[in-house]
Amino acid sequence: MKQEKKVALSTQGYRGTRDFYPKDMRLLTSLYQKIHIIMHSFGYEEYSGPFLEFLDLYAAKTSEEIVREQLYSLKDKGDRTLAIRPEMTPTLARMVAAKSKELPKPIRWYSIPTCMRFERPQRGRLREFNQLNVDVLGGNVLDEDIEILLTIINIFESLGASFDKFRIYINHRGLVDDFFSQVLKINQSTNAPLLRLLDKKDKLSEDEFTTECLKLDLLTDQIEQINSFLSADIDDLCKLFVENNEHVKILKDRIDIVNKISGSECVQFSPSITRGFDYYTGIVFEVFDMNPENRRALFGGGRYDNLVSAFGCDSLPGVGYGVSDVALLNFMETHKLTPELKRTTDVCVLRFQETDRMHQLELAQNLRKHELSVESSITNIKFGKQIAYANRICAKSVAFRGEDEIKNKTFCVKFLDKEQQIVYPYSSEGFEDFKKQLF
Amino acid sequence: MKQEKKVALSTQGYRGTRDFYPKDMRLLTSLYQKIHIIMHSFGYEEYSGPFLEFLDLYAAKTSEEIVREQLYSLKDKGDRTLAIRPEMTPTLARMVAAKSKELPKPIRWYSIPTCMRFERPQRGRLREFNQLNVDVLGGNVLDEDIEILLTIINIFESLGASFDKFRIYINHRGLVDDFFSQVLKINQSTNAPLLRLLDKKDKLSEDEFTTECLKLDLLTDQIEQINSFLSADIDDLCKLFVENNEHVKILKDRIDIVNKISGSECVQFSPSITRGFDYYTGIVFEVFDMNPENRRALFGGGRYDNLVSAFGCDSLPGVGYGVSDVALLNFMETHKLTPELKRTTDVCVLRFQETDRMHQLELAQNLRKHELSVESSITNIKFGKQIAYANRICAKSVAFRGEDEIKNKTFCVKFLDKEQQIVYPYSSEGFEDFKKQLF
Repeated sequence: MKQEKKVALSTQGYRGTRDFYPKDMRLLTSLYQKIHIIMHSFGYEEYSGPFLEFLDLYAAKTSEEIVREQLYSLKDKGDRTLAIRPEMTPTLARMVAAKSKELPKPIRWYSIPTCMRFERPQRGRLREFNQLNVDVLGGNVLDEDIEILLTIINIFESLGASFDKFRIYINHRGLVDDFFSQVLKINQSTNAPLLRLLDKKDKLSEDEFTTECLKLDLLTDQIEQINSFLSADIDDLCKLFVENNEHVKILKDRIDIVNKISGSECVQFSPSITRGFDYYTGIVFEVFDMNPENRRALFGGGRYDNLVSAFGCDSLPGVGYGVSDVALLNFMETHKLTPELKRTTDVCVLRFQETDRMHQLELAQNLRKHELSVESSITNIKFGKQIAYANRICAKSVAFRGEDEIKNKTFCVKFLDKEQQIVYPYSSEGFEDFKKQLF
Repeated sequence: MKQEKKVALSTQGYRGTRDFYPKDMRLLTSLYQKIHIIMHSFGYEEYSGPFLEFLDLYAAKTSEEIVREQLYSLKDKGDRTLAIRPEMTPTLARMVAAKSKELPKPIRWYSIPTCMRFERPQRGRLREFNQLNVDVLGGNVLDEDIEILLTIINIFESLGASFDKFRIYINHRGLVDDFFSQVLKINQSTNAPLLRLLDKKDKLSEDEFTTECLKLDLLTDQIEQINSFLSADIDDLCKLFVENNEHVKILKDRIDIVNKISGSECVQFSPSITRGFDYYTGIVFEVFDMNPENRRALFGGGRYDNLVSAFGCDSLPGVGYGVSDVALLNFMETHKLTPELKRTTDVCVLRFQETDRMHQLELAQNLRKHELSVESSITNIKFGKQIAYANRICAKSVAFRGEDEIKNKTFCVKFLDKEQQIVYPYSSEGFEDFKKQLF
């Protein structure tokens, strides 16, 4: 019988997703570990939610661009319309709303969900990414805003990034609204589309931006005003308005306090930060990599007042941000902050021949009970090659029991970095002594 | 202008998915932590892969039932047909195949991916679950089989489960094939459907099972033979075959060695274990909860010889298993092994009034630098209520700086369990002293 020739399956995954081999996974885990430590240091608790939600949740909460262009949606076999989460905030809102009365306030939560958006994959941006989400709700507006900005600064510190490597640009939605209504004096229906246009301005040429403005029926004068607003510093801005603008004061307070507490100039005002999400109502901010080769937003976030009101709850204002692992890993690489992480096997348990198996397995299990990372040989390669393997994976030591050791109730250890060989009693004390010697 | 009344969004997530509030997340994290420790103790490295893969990958690798009935599939906006992973093994196969030459052998890998299957949610089974996957490839068949079974036993030990709480039932696909061809003497085309029927036999009544057998053109004699095969013990089995059956010996070896090394009778032969996945070729096993109220399979796994050959690679045999967090959490609950896990805030930094903010923020940041978990008050409640909050979240202590402390360059700490109040110098030494006192 002739066998049919089958076409081989591709080993390529779907574009914009990643395979994490152990080496990659060690790096991701070490990044997560740093994040967990920082979040814990601020008393933030981890939460998590479903990968799939009803499409309606995103239709109600997420930016129009994402829902229209970037959502992975599907129907389940019961014809329910679902979507893969493009961001975590709608789930956060749903979860908080579900228990809004009973949850102790303030709510300090974080999560690192995997999210997906249909985008063109590029440096620092993929279709599948893990996005750290940090939010605080139910406290003072000023205190929350400060705390959320401090968590960002502490994350960068824990990555080993000095203050000159990144910058937090901050703005206030209310200030933009004031500018629209008091200076531009535009019709309120133009607010949302103009806000979205400002959010993507840095992707457009000057001409393209002007064309888009004209489409919104803006006059040449107004376009000029927009351009001067976007390049204004915080003191210039005050002059734009008839009276002292309360949102300028709000911004100044946050910038001054966070910079003073962190001993830096990390936080700066930028009128061009508007953020694409519709739910922001207060401060909005983005964090940029200061490396000229990588001038892109890493973190993005802001304050929202009405996150849970769509669920019929009393309003519970808060502030939060998201940052993807892709952007953070990219930042670390750009600034040579990526740690080198090796396997951390404490001991390889060897055997002279297959018939030693029972002694080998028993020794390995005993060492595991003493919290060591133990690889037991499971191939029939010769003793010397087993040591070579242990060296290749950077194991700290090898251990074995030959005839003598079995007779004398001992086990023998060779420390690979020291070329030192020690015989220990085959007992709890012996295992503990060996462990002490290892560390 | 009258406001339109909007229908409130539902706070219910999609059925069969879970919301992990911080309390739930602490439990999940502590389970994961135990798993990471056990896997590390065997030298297994963590890997991860995409949540979405091309549908073809599952069509080629996964059980027919899953692909036909349980897959969440979708098209992306570029019309590519994708599916949410129902299991990790196809991704493992793809990743190993992509680097089959360069990966050092043996490959000892594990992962805890989120997977989805469209099933009726029930106790111990949801639509969205996190499935621990453990696999070893490229070693000796016997050594690998033993090691993989030992990892299961060690996981149960780390959960605090004694040996009487669970049982590993093991069988061999080759033995089932021998029974089909040498005893039943069925046509080879009946193998696959009969195997699948045996896999779901425990969900059928005796009559239903007989009906299904008759549909496969089996005779009454053959059905009787199947029933006696399924209730046979390992020594009975030998009598069924003309010659000593090699697969019986393979099973006996594994059962003897693993039980001896673990000092238990955890591993037992069961001819009714067949597993639904088509890729198994050697031992197959399922782990059962021994509690009569919860007699269901927790772990399932087996040996596969041709996992990567569909990718055009040389064969690389291995053995592995999967177990969902839903099943493990359920097991822990059934046996009262669920730990009680509280928030672990070390210190709440209080303030007498809002104008103390700068001193409060500075103290909090300083304590964070000394690796403490610090919650800084961000509401305007009175001092006494701030202490009450610290008590409610089970913080170990509260710290603050009043006028005296600021003047004297100190900070004051109240240890909440001891009703003890201590003043420390406001310096690195003071922070360290406080930390020592805390632990």
